Amino acid sequence: MKIYFVSSNKHKYIEFRRILKDVIDINWINADYLEPQSDNLIDVAITSAKWFSHYIEEPFFLEDAGLFIDSLGGFPGVYSSYVFKRLGNNGVLKLLDGVENRSARFVSVIALHIGGRITIFEGVVEGTISEEIRGGGWGFDPIFIPNESNGKTYGELGENKDLFSHRGRSATKLRDFIGRLVA
Amino acid sequence: MKIYFVSSNKHKYIEFRRILKDVIDINWINADYLEPQSDNLIDVAITSAKWFSHYIEEPFFLEDAGLFIDSLGGFPGVYSSYVFKRLGNNGVLKLLDGVENRSARFVSVIALHIGGRITIFEGVVEGTISEEIRGGGWGFDPIFIPNESNGKTYGELGENKDLFSHRGRSATKLRDFIGRLVA
Repeated sequence: MKIYFVSSNKHKYIEFRRILKDVIDINWINADYLEPQSDNLIDVAITSAKWFSHYIEEPFFLEDAGLFIDSLGGFPGVYSSYVFKRLGNNGVLKLLDGVENRSARFVSVIALHIGGRITIFEGVVEGTISEEIRGGGWGFDPIFIPNESNGKTYGELGENKDLFSHRGRSATKLRDFIGRLVA
Repeated sequence: MKIYFVSSNKHKYIEFRRILKDVIDINWINADYLEPQSDNLIDVAITSAKWFSHYIEEPFFLEDAGLFIDSLGGFPGVYSSYVFKRLGNNGVLKLLDGVENRSARFVSVIALHIGGRITIFEGVVEGTISEEIRGGGWGFDPIFIPNESNGKTYGELGENKDLFSHRGRSATKLRDFIGRLVA
């Protein structure tokens, strides 16, 4: 069994490949697509998966993810990728300058299209926004500290990010689901 | 001849009604819709107009508008409405704190669906972001200074905003177009 993963984000592909490697090989389709403007990641993922079902072979999955910062009313949320490109980590830190409540959550929603149906796997991680950029990674990795990482940002965790991350959680659910199918 | 205007934004309706009143009455359809995530306002307007053409009678128009700030790579752009709700004028001023280049432009794109076709009317106004909130209005009105207003923000211009505004320009093109049709 092979499975397609649709995304224009190579970093996501690398993370999924790493987490799923013992169960299944994924074929990366490097494609961009119009995402609907909705405040809800699950809506976005389902709409996108339906749209792609006209163009690519099953089974395939895609993922929408977002960083929701409480003191900013959930910003950047579903627009995280756009906001990262425009404002970067420095822009987010600037918005939080002097703000005491730095709580945030990272959410990953996977939509798997298989057997003519869409199944959703969600991963949520609570955490805080750091005071400064720390570590590598990509996107908002250097400013997000998951609550259980002893104060380390995603960017400082390297491959261990998967153990603490929103994507690690959603991908593990996907892995278990596929594992039962191929067993 | 009557024409429908589709929007969930009452302020836009009031501005269009004011600008178009000598030529045509507009019937407001207070509806929200999924906008595609694209960096291009014209794409967004055309896609939305096509989608609505399945649901409402011709002729109708809708408008997408955005504030593009140069030093923020065009942010908030097509996501202006979302960003305004989350960050407000204070959030944008915070992002520009200490930034010298405050140039920005406001763009309005009207998509008119008539005769089975979509016609686009664009209005662009160059300006700057003020150092502080000034005047009333709605949305980003209190922080945008069009270049030709003697330093007044949209919010300080009241109904005179139409003489200087992106929406004034696109709506005037629409008015002239409709004026020729009904003449």
